[in-house]
Amino acid sequence: MSKKPSPQAIAAASETRVLPTDAPRDTRRRRFLTQSASVAGTLATAGVAANAAAQEVPAWMKTPGTPMRAYGTPSSHEKAVQRPSASGYATVSPGTGSSRTPHQSLEGTITPSGLHFERHHNGVPDIDPAKHELLIHGLVNRPLVFNLAALSRYPMVSRNHFVECAGNSSPNAGPKPPQITAGGIHGLASTSEWTGVPLSLLLNEAGIAPGAQWIVAEGADAAAMTRSVPLTKCMDDAMIALYQNGERVRPEQGYPMRLLLPGWEGNMNVKWLRRIKVTDGPTHTKDETSKYTDLQPDGKARQFTFELGVKSVITFPSFGHKLDRRGLYEITGIAWSGAGRIAKVEISADGGKSWQDAPLQGPIYAKSFTRFRLPWEWNGAAAVLQSRATDEKGNVQPTRAAFTSQYVAGMNYHNHYIQTWGVNADGSISNVYA
Amino acid sequence: MSKKPSPQAIAAASETRVLPTDAPRDTRRRRFLTQSASVAGTLATAGVAANAAAQEVPAWMKTPGTPMRAYGTPSSHEKAVQRPSASGYATVSPGTGSSRTPHQSLEGTITPSGLHFERHHNGVPDIDPAKHELLIHGLVNRPLVFNLAALSRYPMVSRNHFVECAGNSSPNAGPKPPQITAGGIHGLASTSEWTGVPLSLLLNEAGIAPGAQWIVAEGADAAAMTRSVPLTKCMDDAMIALYQNGERVRPEQGYPMRLLLPGWEGNMNVKWLRRIKVTDGPTHTKDETSKYTDLQPDGKARQFTFELGVKSVITFPSFGHKLDRRGLYEITGIAWSGAGRIAKVEISADGGKSWQDAPLQGPIYAKSFTRFRLPWEWNGAAAVLQSRATDEKGNVQPTRAAFTSQYVAGMNYHNHYIQTWGVNADGSISNVYA
Repeated sequence: MSKKPSPQAIAAASETRVLPTDAPRDTRRRRFLTQSASVAGTLATAGVAANAAAQEVPAWMKTPGTPMRAYGTPSSHEKAVQRPSASGYATVSPGTGSSRTPHQSLEGTITPSGLHFERHHNGVPDIDPAKHELLIHGLVNRPLVFNLAALSRYPMVSRNHFVECAGNSSPNAGPKPPQITAGGIHGLASTSEWTGVPLSLLLNEAGIAPGAQWIVAEGADAAAMTRSVPLTKCMDDAMIALYQNGERVRPEQGYPMRLLLPGWEGNMNVKWLRRIKVTDGPTHTKDETSKYTDLQPDGKARQFTFELGVKSVITFPSFGHKLDRRGLYEITGIAWSGAGRIAKVEISADGGKSWQDAPLQGPIYAKSFTRFRLPWEWNGAAAVLQSRATDEKGNVQPTRAAFTSQYVAGMNYHNHYIQTWGVNADGSISNVYA
Repeated sequence: MSKKPSPQAIAAASETRVLPTDAPRDTRRRRFLTQSASVAGTLATAGVAANAAAQEVPAWMKTPGTPMRAYGTPSSHEKAVQRPSASGYATVSPGTGSSRTPHQSLEGTITPSGLHFERHHNGVPDIDPAKHELLIHGLVNRPLVFNLAALSRYPMVSRNHFVECAGNSSPNAGPKPPQITAGGIHGLASTSEWTGVPLSLLLNEAGIAPGAQWIVAEGADAAAMTRSVPLTKCMDDAMIALYQNGERVRPEQGYPMRLLLPGWEGNMNVKWLRRIKVTDGPTHTKDETSKYTDLQPDGKARQFTFELGVKSVITFPSFGHKLDRRGLYEITGIAWSGAGRIAKVEISADGGKSWQDAPLQGPIYAKSFTRFRLPWEWNGAAAVLQSRATDEKGNVQPTRAAFTSQYVAGMNYHNHYIQTWGVNADGSISNVYA
């Protein structure tokens, strides 16, 4: 990490094969060998023979391709890019479970809707949108009922936001670092372009009565997921999301409508939303007392840790990847914060002793994944990679030691500490605690 | 369009039902009746009886839902949201065809990858990514061959960009306005978050030889789609796209790699890219001489209209929608330009006599869909809706008459003129020429 290689130097260090034709012999050597002397030793000699396949017509050009489709899916060659589920896909009833976004296989900032994480408390309800209704009642001047057609006439907004389960990254709460992928650890977080109706509009139309301070939101799944939310959040940036990445919200994310509370813990973003009751205080539902509280060493638990902490994870290289030789690579990953925009991501290759800023991909949305990328030269020795995010409010991602010291061992909610990847001398990557 | 209603006024005018319970009788009247006297006449009296369904537990809460899935799909209730194909889905061999993004059913700015338009000249090849290679040769110092693994080591960028077929909107080139949806007319345009390797990096590594001015790019489909591109564009913002909305590029969009030329006509963004030859001039391939030229009344054709014009279309209300009563609606749509960012979208409800600026949803990406929204009060009379976009370079979307006068009748490429929707007295919407 002592110097920042140029993109051109990374390019030169990649696996490109040079054809032995069409060029004078003296230009066939890799031109960046001399431009970047420090990496010369890491490069194989150029001049690999041309692969005949590059010049011959491949089989798929000799026959007509497949027809058009009404709705597309990924290539059959990408079947391995799935949402892994530690609990098994079929674990539903009486049931609960999750499946995770495979961040180690993805790029950019948008999570494909088919790979958005799932966390269900009793499976995915099959809701008839023509029959679904949203009731707003309680401490309001006029209780109101909205069907989908009614909601669709309201003004809408579109914004990119992440949703993250409060239990994301919990595999790292155990005593030994699990050897699983970045998605297996941190995949209960996904980002979509959400479009919907600001909740403040609907609450204003219902008319907020004196004494109203909270709401309680209920989902139409068989678990009737129910969470309390302060009214201030509802009147700030909350929305009733109707669309996800341009189309109707997917069943696993709350079809036909979900509560979206940007930056707040996942299950409060109640899916399959059917009811909002305005109240004078928190309701202390089963879903907010039996879970999602943070037990401290003194035996007391923190409740209502709503805003998710500033966080980042390197997605390449990460567990499952292999650096096949020394040389230049592009380290990349995602960062996010429940408090607003990402302001800075630093990367260390020596376990936190020294740090270097990683350029951020713009435009940077608030409470959304932000992609960072930094060229890095691997010299073939063991290395310890970390990323550390800072948000626009000045919050800095903590170390594992600093975070875990606040709670009992194994406390597995609201984990947003630094992820460490060990690069082994053979180029494989391990999950390590540091 | 004489005044701009507030979002609150639109909310008040929507189809919300008010429950007859929990509120004193005098507050049960719609509170915006008095705040917005001009729309009072359009509102039905409030106080509809509560639908029992809103208070009873629906069927889908009484049984566990479905399990998690490795890769998700839309709700079965959304089957009608498809890519329509005027030529039929199975029209492939010797074949050509297209399917279109159903803009009238979508929101936001990202096109779901499953609904990204298709335009194939001989179907979708089934390419084995482990065997696919990209050759760069011609006027370069070192011909190079890249496989997917090699390309994946290069620095990448992510950006939101539209791709639009040069033949988009051609249904409007006929003498009579076709009564089909916004997607049926304008659906050969879609926006994705693309991630890939800047082409300039690869060309620099190959080393551009003296005299190089163009490239010719070839796809690995059975039609071997081949187009010429000026080198200046390749060294500007062109990329080899490897990812689309976070995951690998979909087969219909060029898996495993495509050329992306932001803002330039669709078929130049060669899919299934296998070869780039650097040349001293345009190659005049079959795909750029037999098609995509703009015939003028003097018998001469314009060739190489690369940059797509500034354009917009109202997606709601549009053909197939129905305004079910007078009152407030939110007009919404998308705007884009091949020249850069959208600077302004104006809306007219009187066929272009008067215009009003529509707020734009930010952040605004260059050469990407931008969503606009404007509240509008429909008084129940016939109306003529238009949107007119202006980009940051000052280009203004032309009228149909101004655009078509430059060409022979029926010239059906590069159509970017104003779309007009007629609102009929019964609330239905027609495609009209104006």
